Amino acid sequence: MLGLLRQITQEVTDAQSLPAALDIIVRRVRRAMRTEVCSIYLVDNLTSEYVLMATRGLHSTAAGSVSLKEDEGLVGLVGRRAEPVNLENAQAHPSYCYLEGTGEERFRSFLGVPIIHHRQILGVLVVQHEEQRRFDEGEEAFLITLSAQLAGVIAHAEATGAINSISADQEKMAADVRYKGVPGSSGVAIGRGVVVFPPADLNVIPDRTTDTPETEISDFYQALEAVRTDIRLASDRISEHVSEDEKGLFDVYLKILDDDSIAGEIVRKINDGQWAQGALRQVIQAHVKQFNAMDDSYLRERATDLRDLGCRILSHLQEKGPKIKERFSEPSIIIGEELTASMLGEIPIHNIKGLVSVKGSGNSHVAILARAMGIPTVMGVLDLPYAQLDKVELILDGYLGQVFTYPSDNLKENFQQVVNEERQLEKQYETLKDLPCETKDGHRLNLYVNTGLSADIGRSLDRGAEGIGLYRTEVPFMVRDRFPTEAEQVQIYRLQLEGFAPAPVTVRTLDIGGDKALPYFPIEEANPFLGWRGIRVTLDHLEIFMAQIRAMIKASADLHNLKIMLPMISNAAEVEEALALIRRAFAEVKEEGYNVKMPRVGVMIEVPAAVYQAKELASLVDFLSVGSNDLTQYLLAVDRNNPRVASLYSSHHPAVLRALYSIVDQVRDEGVGLSVCGEMAGDPMSAILLMAMGYDVLSMSATSLPKVKAVIRNITMAQAQDMLSEVMELPHAEAVTQTMTRLMREANVERLIRPSKTTIE
Amino acid sequence: MLGLLRQITQEVTDAQSLPAALDIIVRRVRRAMRTEVCSIYLVDNLTSEYVLMATRGLHSTAAGSVSLKEDEGLVGLVGRRAEPVNLENAQAHPSYCYLEGTGEERFRSFLGVPIIHHRQILGVLVVQHEEQRRFDEGEEAFLITLSAQLAGVIAHAEATGAINSISADQEKMAADVRYKGVPGSSGVAIGRGVVVFPPADLNVIPDRTTDTPETEISDFYQALEAVRTDIRLASDRISEHVSEDEKGLFDVYLKILDDDSIAGEIVRKINDGQWAQGALRQVIQAHVKQFNAMDDSYLRERATDLRDLGCRILSHLQEKGPKIKERFSEPSIIIGEELTASMLGEIPIHNIKGLVSVKGSGNSHVAILARAMGIPTVMGVLDLPYAQLDKVELILDGYLGQVFTYPSDNLKENFQQVVNEERQLEKQYETLKDLPCETKDGHRLNLYVNTGLSADIGRSLDRGAEGIGLYRTEVPFMVRDRFPTEAEQVQIYRLQLEGFAPAPVTVRTLDIGGDKALPYFPIEEANPFLGWRGIRVTLDHLEIFMAQIRAMIKASADLHNLKIMLPMISNAAEVEEALALIRRAFAEVKEEGYNVKMPRVGVMIEVPAAVYQAKELASLVDFLSVGSNDLTQYLLAVDRNNPRVASLYSSHHPAVLRALYSIVDQVRDEGVGLSVCGEMAGDPMSAILLMAMGYDVLSMSATSLPKVKAVIRNITMAQAQDMLSEVMELPHAEAVTQTMTRLMREANVERLIRPSKTTIE
Repeated sequence: MLGLLRQITQEVTDAQSLPAALDIIVRRVRRAMRTEVCSIYLVDNLTSEYVLMATRGLHSTAAGSVSLKEDEGLVGLVGRRAEPVNLENAQAHPSYCYLEGTGEERFRSFLGVPIIHHRQILGVLVVQHEEQRRFDEGEEAFLITLSAQLAGVIAHAEATGAINSISADQEKMAADVRYKGVPGSSGVAIGRGVVVFPPADLNVIPDRTTDTPETEISDFYQALEAVRTDIRLASDRISEHVSEDEKGLFDVYLKILDDDSIAGEIVRKINDGQWAQGALRQVIQAHVKQFNAMDDSYLRERATDLRDLGCRILSHLQEKGPKIKERFSEPSIIIGEELTASMLGEIPIHNIKGLVSVKGSGNSHVAILARAMGIPTVMGVLDLPYAQLDKVELILDGYLGQVFTYPSDNLKENFQQVVNEERQLEKQYETLKDLPCETKDGHRLNLYVNTGLSADIGRSLDRGAEGIGLYRTEVPFMVRDRFPTEAEQVQIYRLQLEGFAPAPVTVRTLDIGGDKALPYFPIEEANPFLGWRGIRVTLDHLEIFMAQIRAMIKASADLHNLKIMLPMISNAAEVEEALALIRRAFAEVKEEGYNVKMPRVGVMIEVPAAVYQAKELASLVDFLSVGSNDLTQYLLAVDRNNPRVASLYSSHHPAVLRALYSIVDQVRDEGVGLSVCGEMAGDPMSAILLMAMGYDVLSMSATSLPKVKAVIRNITMAQAQDMLSEVMELPHAEAVTQTMTRLMREANVERLIRPSKTTIE
Repeated sequence: MLGLLRQITQEVTDAQSLPAALDIIVRRVRRAMRTEVCSIYLVDNLTSEYVLMATRGLHSTAAGSVSLKEDEGLVGLVGRRAEPVNLENAQAHPSYCYLEGTGEERFRSFLGVPIIHHRQILGVLVVQHEEQRRFDEGEEAFLITLSAQLAGVIAHAEATGAINSISADQEKMAADVRYKGVPGSSGVAIGRGVVVFPPADLNVIPDRTTDTPETEISDFYQALEAVRTDIRLASDRISEHVSEDEKGLFDVYLKILDDDSIAGEIVRKINDGQWAQGALRQVIQAHVKQFNAMDDSYLRERATDLRDLGCRILSHLQEKGPKIKERFSEPSIIIGEELTASMLGEIPIHNIKGLVSVKGSGNSHVAILARAMGIPTVMGVLDLPYAQLDKVELILDGYLGQVFTYPSDNLKENFQQVVNEERQLEKQYETLKDLPCETKDGHRLNLYVNTGLSADIGRSLDRGAEGIGLYRTEVPFMVRDRFPTEAEQVQIYRLQLEGFAPAPVTVRTLDIGGDKALPYFPIEEANPFLGWRGIRVTLDHLEIFMAQIRAMIKASADLHNLKIMLPMISNAAEVEEALALIRRAFAEVKEEGYNVKMPRVGVMIEVPAAVYQAKELASLVDFLSVGSNDLTQYLLAVDRNNPRVASLYSSHHPAVLRALYSIVDQVRDEGVGLSVCGEMAGDPMSAILLMAMGYDVLSMSATSLPKVKAVIRNITMAQAQDMLSEVMELPHAEAVTQTMTRLMREANVERLIRPSKTTIE
């Protein structure tokens, strides 16, 4: 039975459209349950009626034309009560309501189960018999289980089919269709979509037909030649470091490329109408499979070579193909199934108007990067029919996390006004650069920036940053295909330290694990966020930790503006150990003759255990910095990147506010620096609360900095503290947000952070 | 380069022994880096010396016979400083120490990197050149990266090779070799090992040769025939419910079985010397691969049928084979790569002396189950060479989480004494059954049990349980291949409610997600513990929640001893919603004429956010129950099932104790029941602390109950409170455990919970 369930689910998932999916369901269920009738009724969102969408056993002409009011009939009863209704004689039930034109009069027995997805009744699945007998337990359970499994698929098919009203005229509905996601980075973008795929990942290349096989073949041969050149260059480049033996590896590569059988096969597939990338994938995968199946380890290795080569050719096809050049010839809204930070790096920034990612959330790295760069972004638009949106006109609303397809002139005008107001705000922000971040009653707050790329330095200084509150050292590790050496790290860190000197630069030790993997140091875990990450990895790998600490300290020579920050601390022993190692590294570097001072060391508070031990931790180090993203995630037990639960993630949750406040409370007399370097710090609403609690440094993306400064400069500390005490009493996150919105409006500071014309909900 | 790294890592991982693994490393590294010498030195744990274990370039005769003291030579320097040493002229360095017999005198340049795993220096990887030139950055980085990746593999190869002392006489070391894991369930077992594989999982079947192909072939044909019979029976059984059309599916199955090509292929492979299970896997996998590669969806479905059939045949081979019957003919210690709760269900309980799982931790479900059944268990013995332990004599020490192979008579005698003392303790426990759990100064504590199986009822009552503090409803959902219906659930819950009436039975609503999946309702997530689980799933699927609640309430008719508990609550809105639904279900059931009372409703405190909102939550419900396992996990951000970080998991962490105490503190005046139903409640040491904090109900496994009662009856509440205030000041989990051990010894209660003769560390 499990097999049957899986089969049906798979077939329905693979269906090309909602009608096809529904048809498969009624056909397969009728056969599997050996019933005479199987029908699906779906709720029309406009009319709230149950529309008979597909049937086997009732008159097929009734499908799409017959409907029931929400309080009508047995179907309405199933939906209302959200429970199965199982009757041996349906017509005897008081709720029975005869549906004309269906031919249902001859069927006695009735079993209906609700189809529910994300708390919503999508519809009702019904089976019927002529014979007057109750469906048995097994049948009822089967239908319930099937319905629960299919609900998500139906919801997705319904949404990606862009059917707002099932029965309504589809032409009419095509404009201004809205897809809900979550805000990634604020701002509005109006433009055409460009759909991107992950770079050079063979596995995700879809089959696609081509009308111009000649062009595809010529592209393919060009890519092949380009890879040949690459490999020859690579071979020459390293020839002085490797043995003849090892250099032979490259010859193997070249030989595979010259092998007419593979290239020939690909060309044949293109001639049969497959595009070059698809043909490449098919042929490479088939050969890799063959090699993998062999017992000989030497031959199995060839599979790796072959896959490598396939990816190299693919990346040339994707970069060099004329389509690509054309694709990014004008500023566009980039759309991807799962946009990543690295994909972002491959597109010329001036051509990115906005970003839309089907997967991911407002806290995905690409969203964090987008905020840093000020690119309007919507994440987690799960139901977006993204593959159909290439070159389609779109409006992206990063404030509310929504995307509109085929916008009407009216809608475009509305959003254009928002864009214009945004530009004016930006101009206001520029005037703030050299002004201090000080409340009207003279309370001084320090605004730092979070950085990760060298390019961040200039931008941050332009925006008036007073220091770096979080320099993420992962980037230099991620862009290589091996660990950087100590000497390489010194150079990289020096750039940041020099760029900001004499202002402080807080360098976080390597924070891999979780959602950040190094390709050359893979970590596979069932729950990476609760696994081997941050300090846990580096304390286990002393050699990596020591090289990084020594590099940081060397890079600070003569500057003395280094602060070291330890991520993922969950107990005091980790801090004690790390401190001992840092002191040892410092002594070593000093002994080598560098003019260095012992750096200040701090701990990131992102694990709830660290909140409870804030006082002990403070007694060990010079500063504490709250990583509000991860802290919120752990406090609420919510993976912010999981769209199923992302809506539960809120840094305004009373638990988060109380945890943050308890940290201040515990360390008030410890004489340590206290900062927040998560996303909360860059949200003006939260920034007010954090300042009122007693945090003295907020570290955020350069983009957020002027906004926060504008708001802080226009309120008093007394106002902020009043706001804090008002929201600390509230039991729900939503209430906190609503109350703060009201209070900020009353304080006349809301106008400083978003266009007065609110976006269209 | 990534490809090269992966290739080498894969080859080393696949190596059959430590020497083979090391040989691959030196050979491949020398070739990849085009160096003249590559050598590996490993630390001998007995002598602390660096032994030259493998080399290419130095005299091969030196391998195994040459060693350096830990403070000797450049190798010692690399290890001591835990950093690479890169020299253009090694012999000029003050630490240089010439190793006679290696032929190293002609090599000038030297690059050594440490091999570090879990904070331990395992050894040093060295490359050398004749030419006097410094290795460049790229070469250094490559060697560092390779060493970091290989460290885990080397550690594992070293450990599973059972080489305590690399250079020592291996014969001598064979007895009493100890493998460290984590305690799963206390107790000692002495017996022979039986290695089990997951039931009918084709993918994990290893290749294995057979000397008796005739027997294997006859087993195979018997299994084939058995599957034929099963399918015919199944076909007949459901013939009245399915259409002829659907029944045709079974014919397809039978046709595949009759197909001589597949059976013939399998038999041929067996004749070539492969055992039946391996031959089956090879042939089925090959055919499935072919089917999967086809474009036709009908044919792809056949792959599913084929895989299904393969598993059915396999399960018959595994059940019916004479080996299996024989295997469980006497009480044994069951060993598996990853024992699961369901595997446990397949072995006759009276034949299980103990359990050893290579993967998993003390908090895996199999361990929880083992504690419930009182079976000594060790989990997470990662380095155990388990495949070699079939029929090997073992000692399993569930107190300290260790396993000894080939025990000496002396060791066996020691442990036999422990076993004898355990029996005596058990007898003492029996006398406690009807005595109240009351401190010497009259403080009354209620001891409840956690249950999940119907079989738990009798056992729990025997042990003096005063109620059920946690009835896990997952089991009835997990043993089916579809959701149970409301009527089925009523029957199951009724058993528990009747069995304990009039004592209270706390039924937890369905808690799937996390590490508990239903095969017919799959949930795939990157971080399941931070995902869609518990109340999050059921509130999204109203129909499942409502059916369960109605079933619970119906099952409580005339008994009125039902309490409903909501898992994974992370905000007040979830409670409000669930309460509204429970009230609705209650009204519906009452209206149907059942004699029911509105059940008391409670919330599990397992998400840190719920700790911070304990007061608000208490105002909404009748009781709070702390799920200490998950709470600890979230507070510390540690997945207790991940061996890389499991050692960080401790419910004695100061943060956990403070969180637990803060709950009591917040709800003191709210008039709600306050219990703990996690593993802490069943640990006598923690139970004392929980009682002292103010928890009035502790719910635990039936096995733990007498132990906790024995301890509580022998101390006073005043003593407990003194202990609590002493440990609440401590900054480290280890200090808490040590202090409590001392305090319990001083209070003369330690003798009540474990044999006085401590096990051998």
